[in-house]
Amino acid sequence: MFELGIVKRNIVRADRAAADQLARFGASTVHEAMGRVGLMKPYMRPIYAGARISGTAVTVLLHPGDNWMMHVVAEQIQAGDIVVAAITADCTDGYFGDLLATSFQARGARGLIIDAGCRDVKDLTEMGFPVWSKAISSKGTIKATIGSVNIPVVCAGALVNPGDVIVADDDGVVVVPAALAVKTAEAASAREANEGDKRAKLASGVLGLDMYKMREPLEKAGLRYID
Amino acid sequence: MFELGIVKRNIVRADRAAADQLARFGASTVHEAMGRVGLMKPYMRPIYAGARISGTAVTVLLHPGDNWMMHVVAEQIQAGDIVVAAITADCTDGYFGDLLATSFQARGARGLIIDAGCRDVKDLTEMGFPVWSKAISSKGTIKATIGSVNIPVVCAGALVNPGDVIVADDDGVVVVPAALAVKTAEAASAREANEGDKRAKLASGVLGLDMYKMREPLEKAGLRYID
Amino acid sequence: MFELGIVKRNIVRADRAAADQLARFGASTVHEAMGRVGLMKPYMRPIYAGARISGTAVTVLLHPGDNWMMHVVAEQIQAGDIVVAAITADCTDGYFGDLLATSFQARGARGLIIDAGCRDVKDLTEMGFPVWSKAISSKGTIKATIGSVNIPVVCAGALVNPGDVIVADDDGVVVVPAALAVKTAEAASAREANEGDKRAKLASGVLGLDMYKMREPLEKAGLRYID
Amino acid sequence: MFELGIVKRNIVRADRAAADQLARFGASTVHEAMGRVGLMKPYMRPIYAGARISGTAVTVLLHPGDNWMMHVVAEQIQAGDIVVAAITADCTDGYFGDLLATSFQARGARGLIIDAGCRDVKDLTEMGFPVWSKAISSKGTIKATIGSVNIPVVCAGALVNPGDVIVADDDGVVVVPAALAVKTAEAASAREANEGDKRAKLASGVLGLDMYKMREPLEKAGLRYID
Amino acid sequence: MFELGIVKRNIVRADRAAADQLARFGASTVHEAMGRVGLMKPYMRPIYAGARISGTAVTVLLHPGDNWMMHVVAEQIQAGDIVVAAITADCTDGYFGDLLATSFQARGARGLIIDAGCRDVKDLTEMGFPVWSKAISSKGTIKATIGSVNIPVVCAGALVNPGDVIVADDDGVVVVPAALAVKTAEAASAREANEGDKRAKLASGVLGLDMYKMREPLEKAGLRYID
Amino acid sequence: MFELGIVKRNIVRADRAAADQLARFGASTVHEAMGRVGLMKPYMRPIYAGARISGTAVTVLLHPGDNWMMHVVAEQIQAGDIVVAAITADCTDGYFGDLLATSFQARGARGLIIDAGCRDVKDLTEMGFPVWSKAISSKGTIKATIGSVNIPVVCAGALVNPGDVIVADDDGVVVVPAALAVKTAEAASAREANEGDKRAKLASGVLGLDMYKMREPLEKAGLRYID
Repeated sequence: MFELGIVKRNIVRADRAAADQLARFGASTVHEAMGRVGLMKPYMRPIYAGARISGTAVTVLLHPGDNWMMHVVAEQIQAGDIVVAAITADCTDGYFGDLLATSFQARGARGLIIDAGCRDVKDLTEMGFPVWSKAISSKGTIKATIGSVNIPVVCAGALVNPGDVIVADDDGVVVVPAALAVKTAEAASAREANEGDKRAKLASGVLGLDMYKMREPLEKAGLRYID
Repeated sequence: MFELGIVKRNIVRADRAAADQLARFGASTVHEAMGRVGLMKPYMRPIYAGARISGTAVTVLLHPGDNWMMHVVAEQIQAGDIVVAAITADCTDGYFGDLLATSFQARGARGLIIDAGCRDVKDLTEMGFPVWSKAISSKGTIKATIGSVNIPVVCAGALVNPGDVIVADDDGVVVVPAALAVKTAEAASAREANEGDKRAKLASGVLGLDMYKMREPLEKAGLRYID
Repeated sequence: MFELGIVKRNIVRADRAAADQLARFGASTVHEAMGRVGLMKPYMRPIYAGARISGTAVTVLLHPGDNWMMHVVAEQIQAGDIVVAAITADCTDGYFGDLLATSFQARGARGLIIDAGCRDVKDLTEMGFPVWSKAISSKGTIKATIGSVNIPVVCAGALVNPGDVIVADDDGVVVVPAALAVKTAEAASAREANEGDKRAKLASGVLGLDMYKMREPLEKAGLRYID
Repeated sequence: MFELGIVKRNIVRADRAAADQLARFGASTVHEAMGRVGLMKPYMRPIYAGARISGTAVTVLLHPGDNWMMHVVAEQIQAGDIVVAAITADCTDGYFGDLLATSFQARGARGLIIDAGCRDVKDLTEMGFPVWSKAISSKGTIKATIGSVNIPVVCAGALVNPGDVIVADDDGVVVVPAALAVKTAEAASAREANEGDKRAKLASGVLGLDMYKMREPLEKAGLRYID
Repeated sequence: MFELGIVKRNIVRADRAAADQLARFGASTVHEAMGRVGLMKPYMRPIYAGARISGTAVTVLLHPGDNWMMHVVAEQIQAGDIVVAAITADCTDGYFGDLLATSFQARGARGLIIDAGCRDVKDLTEMGFPVWSKAISSKGTIKATIGSVNIPVVCAGALVNPGDVIVADDDGVVVVPAALAVKTAEAASAREANEGDKRAKLASGVLGLDMYKMREPLEKAGLRYID
Repeated sequence: MFELGIVKRNIVRADRAAADQLARFGASTVHEAMGRVGLMKPYMRPIYAGARISGTAVTVLLHPGDNWMMHVVAEQIQAGDIVVAAITADCTDGYFGDLLATSFQARGARGLIIDAGCRDVKDLTEMGFPVWSKAISSKGTIKATIGSVNIPVVCAGALVNPGDVIVADDDGVVVVPAALAVKTAEAASAREANEGDKRAKLASGVLGLDMYKMREPLEKAGLRYID
C-alpha cells in the first residue's frame, strides 16, 4: 500500500449502472445511505456551483508541487471515470488546468477530485469540466518525481480505492466502496422515495415533531416548555 | 443563561416594521448605524450570492453533530422570523437540509443563520431559502441530546437574544438588539440618504480628501508628500 | 522602505501597452511566463467570479482597522491603475465599499487588491468594480492613523513596488515587476500560441505522455506498470 | 448591551469562596459540572504551561489594534479578579505586555483572558502572570478609540458578564455565571470525589465497560464482536 | 471497510521487536526510511514536549462528540499498543482525559493518537501518558452512538490498519504498515549509522555542497554565483 | 528581484554592534522602536521557548518540498548570521533538521527563520539551535530545483533584504533594514530605559490612567463612568 512508482492498469470498477445512477441522489443522500461514512473533508469545494457527478475512481498519488503523474493517470482513464488525486503532503499549488482538462475530457473523465490546488478556473467553467479542490492557485508545478497510479489513496481524509464510486456536488465529495455501490444506490433510492412524502407533509405545515413522533422522547429526555 | 433543556414559547419580538425595514439597508449600513458592534465573524457566508433578509430571531442551542432541537425550534417559528442556531462546540456537520427548510419555510421563516454546516445547497438555492453558515457538508447529524430554544446564544461570536433583529446579506450577518431596532432603522435611513449625495460627488471626481476635509488633519498627523 | 507617513506622487509606471495586454493571458499564464514567482497567497479571492484585469499598481500601506489612507491613495490614481493595499498586521475588517469604489472608478482605477476585508459586495458586483480580498466583512474602519502611499509593500506574501503590473482573475493575483512587463508579455504570448496547438492535440486524444515524450524519462525514474 | 463608551464601576461579583475554590477542580471538571456549556473556543491557549487560576471577571471591550481601554479597566480591578478582554473584530495584535501586567498584578489581578494577541511572553512567564490568548504577537496597539468596561462581552465564543467566575488552565477557559458559582463548586467537588474511586478501579485493570455497565446498552445499540 | 458497529478482537500485530525498536529512530528518520509516505498531517501535536514512542496500533472509529467506543477499545489493548482514534467528521472535543488514560495505561497502552481534542493535559503530563491530538479542549463527549474497533481508519490524513506500527515524537506521527516494520527498522538503522558520519563531518565545517558532491549538478541546473 | 538561480556572495551586512545588541531588547521592543513595521506574521513560532537572538540575514528562496538551496546558503553563512528561508508557495514540509543545523552552527549561524516546516525538534532543542517556523513536520524534501541565495525575499509577510537585522524571540520575528539598525538600537535602548521607570511606578500601584495623563482625553472622547 502507498507503494511509489507503480501504475496499476487493470482495476475492477464498481458496477457501471450503480456508479452512473448515484449522481441522481447527490452527495448528501448517498452519504446518509452509506451510514454517514466516506465523506471527504468539507474544505473540498467545487470550482463552480451546480455540478453534480458520479463515476468510478482512478487514483493518483502525487508529490507536493509535482504533477508529472497527472499525465500518467490520463492514459488509465476510461469513459465514466473520475480522477482522484492525493498528495503526500499539504500543498495548494495549481496542479491542473485547461490543457490537462482537455486531455482528461477527451479520455472520458467526468471530473477531478484533488486534495490540492486547481487553476484556469475560467476555462474549466466554460469547458464544463468540474473540479473539487482545496484551493485555487496560479502556482504551477514541476515534473520531477514519480508517484503512483491506481493504488489506494487518502484524499481529503477519505480512503479511496481504485474502482470505488465517487459522488460529488455542491455539498461535497463522497466515496462509495465498489462492493457497496449497488446496495448504496438501492438505499439512496429508498431514502429519496421516502423523502418525497415527508417533504409534502412538511410543506403543508405538519411539524417534524409530530411526523417523526418526537414529542414523547423529547419529554423523556427532560425538555421543558416555559412561557 | 445557557440553561439546557428549555423551550421558551413567549418571546418579545422587535418592532415588526423596523425588523422588516432593516433588510433594505443591508448588513454593512446597519452595522455602521449600530456603532460597529453586533457583527458575526466573517467566516459566516451565504450558501448563494445575492440574498438580503432581515427578521426577528428565534434561537436554538445545539450540541455538536446533533440536530434534534431543529425540529423543536420549527414549532416556535412565526412569519418573519429568522432562525439563529448556535452550537456548544465547533462543528462543521450539515445540520440543515431541504426537508427542514421546507418545514421552516412553511412556518414563515425567512432564513437560517447557523454556526456550523449546511447541506442540500442545490435544493436550498432552488427553493430560495437562504442560509448563512460556516461550512457546507454532507455529514448528517443524530437526534440524541436536547438543547434549548429561545435562550440567549452566542452565534459566530455575536450575542443573540430571542426577538433581536437579524440582518444578513453578502457582506455578513448583523444582530440588532430588539430595543434598538427602531432607532437603528432611523439611523440607517439617515446614513443612506446621506450616502446618495456623497456617491454623486465622488462619481463626478470630487475626492474624499476634499469632501471630508481631510487634508488639514492629515497634515497635522504628519503626512508628507514627496516627488 | 516601509517608511510611514509618506505619499510618493511621481512613480514610474510599467510600459502601458504591456500592462494592458497582460490581462488577456490571465494570472496563471503570466505566472508561468514569470518563472513561477510573484504570486500572492491563494487566500486572495475575487468578490465575484469572472473578472480579469491587469494594470499598474499604486500602493498603500494601512493600519489594522484604519482606512484613512484609502482617501489619500485615491488622489494618486491614474487611468489604468490598480490599487494594492497592504496592512501592517492581520485584519479582516471591511476597508472598502461602494463609496470608495465610486471614487476609485471615477479616477480610472480598474480594481482593488487588498490583504484584508471588503464590503458592499452586492453594490460592487453591480458596479462591475472587481476586488480581490482575503475576507468579506461589514466591519467598518476608523480614520485615525496615517500610513503611506506608493512605497514598496508586501501584500498577501508578494512584494509590490509602485508601478509594477498586477494581473488578477479567478485564479489569483500575480505581480510583474515593471522592468519585466514587456518581456513577460512576450513570454506569455509565446506560451499561449504554443498552448493552442497542444490543446488541439490533447482534445483529439493524444496523450501528454507522448506529446511531451515522457515515457522514457518516467521509465528511467523507475516507473513500473503492473496488471 | 454592547454599549460603547461606558465604565461600570459597581459590579456584583460571584461568591468569593466559590470563585476561589473553582481553580482546584480545573477547567474540564468545572465544564462538566456546568453541564458542558460556557467553554471558550479551544484556540485560546495559555502562554506558558501549568498555570491554573480562577477568579471573578472584570470585562473590557476593545477595538482592533487599540488597547486604550486596558488602562481604564486596570482601575476597576480588585484582588481576585481576572480581566476578560473581547475585541469588536478579529485581531491578533499584541494588546498586552509586561508593563500592563505589572499594573494588573499590582491591582490584584490573577491573569488575563484576551481574544487577541499578547506579547512580552518571556517577561510574563518570569513574572508568573498567566495569559490565555489566541495569538502571540509583537505588534503593538494605538490608543485612539474608546470601548467599554464591565459590560457583557463575547470572548472567544463565550458570553461573559462582569462578576462571572473564570476558570482557566492548560485545558482552556470556562465561564461560570455568578449565580451558579456556588452550585457549580459543589457539583465539581462531588464529581471529583467520585472520580477518585473510578481512577483506582481503572488503575487496577477494571474496564470502563464493566464499571459503567456498558456491555448491555452497547449490544442493544448493535455492537458485534468478530474474530 | 469503514463498517460501523464492529469490534475485531484478533488482529495481526507487526513484529514486536521491530515495533519496539522504531521509537529509537524517531518519526522523521522512520518517515525517510519509509520513502516519505505514511505521515499524519502536521496539525497533530504532542500535548507535552519530549515524548517518543512506538508501538502497534489498535484503532477506533468514533463519531463527533461521542467517545463511547473509547471504553470498547480499552478492552482490546495489549501491552505495547498505541490507540489510534479517527472521527467520522471534524471535531475538537476533548474525547480523552485522565480516567481513560488510567485505564489505557493499566492495559499496557503506550499512548494515544487522536484526530480530535484531548483534555486533562496537566494530569496526563504528570502521569507520563503521551497524546498526539489536533486540539486541546475541556469539552466533554456523550456516549450515544456506536462506531468500530480495529477496522482500517483514516487518522489525520493517514491510513492506519490495526496492527500497523505507530512512531510518534515531537516531529509528528508516522504509520508503518505491519508488513514493512522489519524492513523499515533495518532501513532506519542504516540511515542512522550513516548520519553519524555525516554529522561529524558537517560539525567540522565540511559543507554539504562538497560532502554530497552537489556543486556540479547545481551548476548544470544553471546556478550562477555573482558578487 | 526574485530572480531564480542566483547566489550573491558579497552582501553588505548591517552594523555588527547594532545587529548583536538588538537581541537584548527583544522582538517587541524593537518592533516598537521601528514604528511598528517589519514584523513577520504571528504564525511564525519558535520550536522551543526562551530563545532570543539577533543577527544579520542571509536569505534563501526555496521551492515547495525542495531544500537543495539550503546547502548552497550554508556556504554563505558568516559568524553572527541568521538564515531566512522563504518559499515560492505555501508548504509545511520539514526542510531543516539536525544535520543541516550541525552545518549551519559550524558556520556560525545563530538560528533559522523559515516560512515552512522544520523537523528533528528534539535534537535541535538539545543542540540549542533555535528555529522559528510555521510548522513542524517529519516530511522531508527533495533536491531537484534551484532557487536563489541572498536576494530580497518575502518571509511570512515581511520583506527581508540580505544583510538586514533579524530579531527573534518568544514574541515573534522582526526585520530591521540594515540602514536603520543603529538608529533602531538607539531608539530601543531609549525605550527600555524609559520602561524601567514606568514599571516601578506601575508596580507601586500608580495607574497608567494617571501616569500617561489619559483621564482628560478619555473624557473628551466621551467615556462615561456609571455605577
